[in-house]
Amino acid sequence: MPFSLDDLPIRDDLRGLTPYGAPQKSVPVALNVNENTHPIPEDVARDIVEAVAQAVLQVNRYPDREFTILRDALAGYLGHGLTRDNIWAANGSNEVIQQILQAFGGPGRSVLGFPPTYSMHSIIAAGTGSTWIDGARDEGFTISPETAVAEIRRTDPDIVFFCGPNNPTGTPLDLATVEAAYDATDGLVFVDEAYAEFMPVGQPTALTLLEGRERLIVSRTMSKAFAFAGARVGYMAAHPAVTDALRLVRLPYHLSSLTQAAAVAALSHADEMLAMVGEISTQRDRIVSVLTELGYTPWPTWSNFVLFGGVDDPDDVFERLLERGIIVRNLGIPNHLRVSAGTEAETTAFLEALRDIRLSS
Amino acid sequence: MPFSLDDLPIRDDLRGLTPYGAPQKSVPVALNVNENTHPIPEDVARDIVEAVAQAVLQVNRYPDREFTILRDALAGYLGHGLTRDNIWAANGSNEVIQQILQAFGGPGRSVLGFPPTYSMHSIIAAGTGSTWIDGARDEGFTISPETAVAEIRRTDPDIVFFCGPNNPTGTPLDLATVEAAYDATDGLVFVDEAYAEFMPVGQPTALTLLEGRERLIVSRTMSKAFAFAGARVGYMAAHPAVTDALRLVRLPYHLSSLTQAAAVAALSHADEMLAMVGEISTQRDRIVSVLTELGYTPWPTWSNFVLFGGVDDPDDVFERLLERGIIVRNLGIPNHLRVSAGTEAETTAFLEALRDIRLSS
Repeated sequence: MPFSLDDLPIRDDLRGLTPYGAPQKSVPVALNVNENTHPIPEDVARDIVEAVAQAVLQVNRYPDREFTILRDALAGYLGHGLTRDNIWAANGSNEVIQQILQAFGGPGRSVLGFPPTYSMHSIIAAGTGSTWIDGARDEGFTISPETAVAEIRRTDPDIVFFCGPNNPTGTPLDLATVEAAYDATDGLVFVDEAYAEFMPVGQPTALTLLEGRERLIVSRTMSKAFAFAGARVGYMAAHPAVTDALRLVRLPYHLSSLTQAAAVAALSHADEMLAMVGEISTQRDRIVSVLTELGYTPWPTWSNFVLFGGVDDPDDVFERLLERGIIVRNLGIPNHLRVSAGTEAETTAFLEALRDIRLSS
Repeated sequence: MPFSLDDLPIRDDLRGLTPYGAPQKSVPVALNVNENTHPIPEDVARDIVEAVAQAVLQVNRYPDREFTILRDALAGYLGHGLTRDNIWAANGSNEVIQQILQAFGGPGRSVLGFPPTYSMHSIIAAGTGSTWIDGARDEGFTISPETAVAEIRRTDPDIVFFCGPNNPTGTPLDLATVEAAYDATDGLVFVDEAYAEFMPVGQPTALTLLEGRERLIVSRTMSKAFAFAGARVGYMAAHPAVTDALRLVRLPYHLSSLTQAAAVAALSHADEMLAMVGEISTQRDRIVSVLTELGYTPWPTWSNFVLFGGVDDPDDVFERLLERGIIVRNLGIPNHLRVSAGTEAETTAFLEALRDIRLSS
């Protein structure tokens, strides 16, 4: 037998695990990882490249460890009276979450989450030695204030994780649930708002709850609405004391000067970067409507994707879509698949292929 | 009292700590963090920007999670028969180290290191819940094979950390010490070679020991010789099983597409990027020679910096250099300061300022 992973002295809790990851396949229509499938506008791209070019001139020097200009830009984008002192960022919101759990979780501490939810939450909890606790949702993947409070009382967690709108279900998160959870715990309350920009226009987000709640953290990402998944920029807003805590665990200079420059340039074009959000929401609503018509059961969604049930054999449908050059996500939820809203053409390709498959089965 | 970090439920082991970090001051002559003070050549910068521009066109998509092209390029640069399967990279070697300790260290496991050494080693150990053990060095900051073996027998660590050439002392690392340590432990042996390119030309590095040693990891960085500190690219070479272990703990898509593109472009110009290494080594040797002449006691160094003793009052000398627009590093080692070798002009500025201070005190 050749030397393998099993022969190395890895941690016992990692033995037998396989790495996280959606399959990386190159197909014409990729609707599997909730990306924004619209490339960024050309003039914005040009400004980003210009900003990066400036950064490259000093790339021999370490970046600003405090990424001050980027924090200013993120605070300005979020609004709600937030300033740089409220903001922290990292290489994707995964890293923000890891830093939060390094500071507030870890061995001997527990995190209550509500599956099905973003699978990296429990993986990062495990990776930081925190104990992950599965909380129960109500019917239709919702979480009422009463349910949240009951689960907190039952499990006494150090940290409560919400995801709103929820991935992979798309379910809206009731802000009353966040408020009730906050009042029911002395621990941290974390709300992952990766998909917040796809919520109905004018709908308040958990950012509106930050004032006066020092133990509340709201995370965002530039990966989705901002069409910036490749640049890896996640961030959070919270009381300045929370950012001080993250400074204790972050790796120094964790955000490269190229990342900082690119993100600042993109944020200065926020309106253009977000121009596709309305169009994506339109395609999402169209997916819900056609899936219903086809006899599937799509769940209500405020995100850029749709989880739908009524799929007799998800593995088979996944493969038959793939044969047609379309990749969606099979998350192992019985009789369900998840699809991201693409461009109008991509969405049409998916819906027509699925109609074919439905009618031929 | 306003709400502060102490009012948050942070981990007990973080209470009262202050964040790692060299002071970030904007001064004309910055010789404090062992950067390469030479900007990268203009034509290389142009190629990097061109590569990033290509990546920006698809920045709405997640990056290659396996950063295959970058691993190929790093393997090609290192040579020694290494292939992409031997290579792993992350946002700075700090993140590589964190991933190694997440996979092989953590609660209930220990790391033996030999201070004074790169201070992030023990900080990252603590951040991952690993127990850090201080090993003893021999005279002159060296570590003989006998000393390494004796310390391993005494402490029975899960992982042994070396740094060669050692930061902050510059001390060469005897490869016989690495070999002896490897034979004396069933655990991992990690060699941080951040400064390897500044070693005397033709001197073998720990890369030559990898063949047949599956538990040996050698890390490198593009921050120093490559003048790429701002881009945050650290990497390691080891048996492919080690990279499999790191896949279990890495955050998915941890390396942005901009980072991957910039690093690949830089590596394709390795000769030009490294053109300043000889000049920097010349300035380093000049610092050693002038410091000796001034009555200081510089330690032998194979890196791009010099640790020197014989400083009556390091705080005072640090401040007086700063008044003259020169920043060096005061690491808290009694009667010592550390200075990075800069350009010829920067080095001259430092040496003349220090001569002034020496003569006036």
